[in-house]
Amino acid sequence: MTTNEILSRAAAVKTVVALLDEQTKNNALYAMADALLAHKEDILAANRADMDAARESLSEVMQDRLLLTAARITAMADGIRAVAALPDPVGRTLATHTREDGLRIEKVSAPIGVVAIIYESRPNVTSDAAALAFKSGNVAVLRSGKEAHASAAAITAALREGLTACALPADLVSLVEDTTRASANELMHAVGKVDLLIPRGGKGLIRACVENATVPCIETGTGICHVYIDRDADLDKALSIIENAKTSRPSVCNAAEVCLVDAAVAPAFLPRLRERLVDARIQSGKTPVALRLDGRAAAIIEGEAAGEEDFDTEFLDYILAVGVVDDATAAIAHIGAHSTHHSEAIVTENDATAARFAASVDSAAVYINASTRFTDGGEFGLGCEMGISTQKLHARGPMGLAELCTYKYVVRGNGQIR
Amino acid sequence: MTTNEILSRAAAVKTVVALLDEQTKNNALYAMADALLAHKEDILAANRADMDAARESLSEVMQDRLLLTAARITAMADGIRAVAALPDPVGRTLATHTREDGLRIEKVSAPIGVVAIIYESRPNVTSDAAALAFKSGNVAVLRSGKEAHASAAAITAALREGLTACALPADLVSLVEDTTRASANELMHAVGKVDLLIPRGGKGLIRACVENATVPCIETGTGICHVYIDRDADLDKALSIIENAKTSRPSVCNAAEVCLVDAAVAPAFLPRLRERLVDARIQSGKTPVALRLDGRAAAIIEGEAAGEEDFDTEFLDYILAVGVVDDATAAIAHIGAHSTHHSEAIVTENDATAARFAASVDSAAVYINASTRFTDGGEFGLGCEMGISTQKLHARGPMGLAELCTYKYVVRGNGQIR
Repeated sequence: MTTNEILSRAAAVKTVVALLDEQTKNNALYAMADALLAHKEDILAANRADMDAARESLSEVMQDRLLLTAARITAMADGIRAVAALPDPVGRTLATHTREDGLRIEKVSAPIGVVAIIYESRPNVTSDAAALAFKSGNVAVLRSGKEAHASAAAITAALREGLTACALPADLVSLVEDTTRASANELMHAVGKVDLLIPRGGKGLIRACVENATVPCIETGTGICHVYIDRDADLDKALSIIENAKTSRPSVCNAAEVCLVDAAVAPAFLPRLRERLVDARIQSGKTPVALRLDGRAAAIIEGEAAGEEDFDTEFLDYILAVGVVDDATAAIAHIGAHSTHHSEAIVTENDATAARFAASVDSAAVYINASTRFTDGGEFGLGCEMGISTQKLHARGPMGLAELCTYKYVVRGNGQIR
Repeated sequence: MTTNEILSRAAAVKTVVALLDEQTKNNALYAMADALLAHKEDILAANRADMDAARESLSEVMQDRLLLTAARITAMADGIRAVAALPDPVGRTLATHTREDGLRIEKVSAPIGVVAIIYESRPNVTSDAAALAFKSGNVAVLRSGKEAHASAAAITAALREGLTACALPADLVSLVEDTTRASANELMHAVGKVDLLIPRGGKGLIRACVENATVPCIETGTGICHVYIDRDADLDKALSIIENAKTSRPSVCNAAEVCLVDAAVAPAFLPRLRERLVDARIQSGKTPVALRLDGRAAAIIEGEAAGEEDFDTEFLDYILAVGVVDDATAAIAHIGAHSTHHSEAIVTENDATAARFAASVDSAAVYINASTRFTDGGEFGLGCEMGISTQKLHARGPMGLAELCTYKYVVRGNGQIR
């Protein structure tokens, strides 16, 4: 089927899913999870085909992202059931206003419509994105990376079988068949057919979507996250936070990439930072962090000299750019110039400095004395996540079910005119 | 000054306005209103220059839009004071979540940053947009139409004087000096400098912004609004609602352009519609409405035959396209295919039909037994309005101060790590 046909079929069932009640949606999600488990062998076989084709072209890390196992499929089914357990985000009354003439204006959450998700090599995004879109009353049009297409197709077939088993249209979830660049372009330009485009993947994919899409698009997640160690910091907390932010999972967007240190505490802090991130980690058999130091930091501790680009790079690795700044004002200015507006932290015991940092730093999440690693829908109590928005309109930070909805005003009267 | 210089100066004061407290902002708004009145003569002189230049090129309607009078300037100052009286939309706690580990996640409203507003010939948009942007903690970069530029420049000079009088940077409000197409293009493509672009004006301007902008842009308001008269309608209410929606102010976006009539009541309703909108209005000296009838309507009453485009036209005039549909389902489908997602109404005494219409019609405002003319920030209780969004992301329907804000997550801990 052509991408255009898939989009037309998706548009045709928008109203169906928008009107489903919570119980019907949840039953369908359970059926989708069951179908996924029932087709475990088919999905694993399709994944083996993807893996065989990927053996030579993909790195080991990418192959691990692509790989499915029985346990991973079970986790995908559990993920769908977890979405079923979340409250229905559609039809919630967000505000009401009753006028003196009796006209009642109600602001009500509503589905967005057809949500297209372009992703890369993680097959589990297929079920994850489909479940979130469906629960929020949207129609999902998925476009997987070429290398994961067989896996995604097998997963989508199972999900559609689950829908059909509940007498719902299979077209509520579809996978674009064309895996060339043309289909991604078609989704980006399907004005009037795609109500929202969400890219989920690396920087290249996200930039391509944000820069080229003429349909509404949400920029998700590259993170050049900063941790600023203020002169009034508790240095023990600072060490623990920066180590966690940098090393607990370096490959994710909420990991720290830059540590800024107030000049007033740099002589005391930087040697301890080096000890904690390099020496102690080597001694305990952990991967040490490669420090990239600006001139002022290099005057205090040893380490590789940072190039200019090191303060504008999402390393996603055991690398940390370290710079010394004059004070909190300078840190705020540096972050304003270099951050991707994802997550930034200050470590300080000074409430006034913390409040100024929180109000001035223009990022989705601003932390006071905590690790940037908490920026996540699950950790924030949203129960799930479609991605982390680094833009300011519509959704900022972790996108849960509520962020996959729009709203409308429903106005009830008895003949009122103006 | 070049547009780029103006944008750089605007970016430099983003943090200033983001941190202002409510009282400081309100004092500045009062000072801006006072300065506007103090410079009434300068503004009127500038407006005379604009009017002289416009005498030959602009229609009478456009000249009236451009014209300022002492009374209109007083109304502009009152408008600024009304914005001062509204609650501060910045720094409001929208949600909180405290984790078991004590980490407190607060979702807080925050300014968007630099908001660029491209408008046309109404000089009052200058003060109106500046006041709304300022109260919501944003920096305003205004770009008026060429024909209103002298007026807009005089108004902006007064507003900046008001800011300076309160020891605030004048650059919190600026007017782009270049009135050629180049400056509008520059604003549309100022990625990283313009945080939000709002076009306010006609269809051509809005389409140009939405289709070309690479900065975040909100599509405002063309309205092909529908009123559907259901088989279970109270026909007296229906007549009153359609006359109000069509004729109370035909030139605005929330005026009705299309009346759909359920086939079951068309023989009873259409002759009364013709009597009310045509004959009775002629008899009472009012402008009659020109009816453009589809084939089924034309079989019942007299009137001009509608062309296909008449059901896809924002007439903004005393013209109404009238069509007969099989039932509410057909009306919903017709609206889905032809509306601009602004405002639609159903007239019915049947609650189930009303509920289905409200849930299925994908527009910013859906009315049950009331006129579409209420879609307005003031009427909806928002106190003001920057425009009416017809898109689904971020803001939908009337945009008040809250819709000129984004949010951020402020996370307070005591050393929590993940």
